[in-house]
Amino acid sequence: MSILPKSVQNLIDQFSRFPGVGPKTASRLVFYLLSQEKEGIDELGQAVLAVNKNIVKCQKCYNLSDSNLCSLCGSNSRDKKTLMVVEEPLDIVALEKTDYQGLYFVLGGLISPIDDVSPEDLRVNELINRLSDGTIREMILATDPSLEGEATAMYLSKEVEKYQNSGKIDKKLQITRIARGLPVGSDLEYADEVTLMRSLEGRKKFN
Amino acid sequence: MSILPKSVQNLIDQFSRFPGVGPKTASRLVFYLLSQEKEGIDELGQAVLAVNKNIVKCQKCYNLSDSNLCSLCGSNSRDKKTLMVVEEPLDIVALEKTDYQGLYFVLGGLISPIDDVSPEDLRVNELINRLSDGTIREMILATDPSLEGEATAMYLSKEVEKYQNSGKIDKKLQITRIARGLPVGSDLEYADEVTLMRSLEGRKKFN
Repeated sequence: MSILPKSVQNLIDQFSRFPGVGPKTASRLVFYLLSQEKEGIDELGQAVLAVNKNIVKCQKCYNLSDSNLCSLCGSNSRDKKTLMVVEEPLDIVALEKTDYQGLYFVLGGLISPIDDVSPEDLRVNELINRLSDGTIREMILATDPSLEGEATAMYLSKEVEKYQNSGKIDKKLQITRIARGLPVGSDLEYADEVTLMRSLEGRKKFN
Repeated sequence: MSILPKSVQNLIDQFSRFPGVGPKTASRLVFYLLSQEKEGIDELGQAVLAVNKNIVKCQKCYNLSDSNLCSLCGSNSRDKKTLMVVEEPLDIVALEKTDYQGLYFVLGGLISPIDDVSPEDLRVNELINRLSDGTIREMILATDPSLEGEATAMYLSKEVEKYQNSGKIDKKLQITRIARGLPVGSDLEYADEVTLMRSLEGRKKFN
């Protein structure tokens, strides 16, 4: 039997569901929370409820949004001819720190037989529909450079090519993949051989 | 400018306040939360509000409780003559895994000049009052074996002795300190010298 009051134990259980948060970390977070001012705790609870109430998926790119169209899809200053396909909304946050100015499409996962994720679980049909109106001229495949990410990129490019051959998608649509290579600031001698191989394959003319 | 919807950014800021949780971890937690079912998110929000509404401090030991008296102070099966003084409620959770059967007293912190915590910030008066009715026969000082914990234990024992001399607290009250020594399962050769010294000082007759 737990010696903790029921509502405390319940909150610890809730926190334990987060990835990378075990029961010990969850306890520490909850006890820290309970050492705070009552107003601060209420604020957190309300913030969770508010995010749940206000956040929807953008109808166009499936990014998180507080309206039908996210701030990126709704913006006039973005390049509407380039579409970057990513796994999840968190990837967009990272990519927005670069000078990329195009639009995004959130696939909602990566193909992974081990985790029982097949193409039907992803937004492949939605992506095909998005590409079929002819506005997009370049689709950048920006899935992770992992086994699952590579397989997903491969699958998507094959699918799009299939629809290009059937005429549903314009043949002029270019499919590109983000470069795999050595991360900036890293040490060549410690790089794994696959990364090195990719880095050689992707070499470019030196100014 | 953040590209995230306001309520998402707000929740990330809230999560960032937890100790050991930086903005990156907070983002990951929030995006994970948003990938869950709507019901699950609501549950978490309600659990935070519920814990804030229901949890009070036990009037007797200042442990977290859902009624005026916590389950330990209200229990008939605990040894009411022994009082263990701890820094915070989380310590009680750890100690309840031992076979300790007495009661607790939550001090609410440790004396720490660096963090600007002086004895007046702790529940020292409350502790003296608790001891003055004569029920408690042993007070176990179970503050951390850190600099602050040792200083606090020292301070408390001096305070209680002062009140024992003035007659407010029974002279028969015994003051004890939890043993410092080598943790079970550890390796003697890697132990620091202070721990080893304490371990020698605290040696006991074998069988």
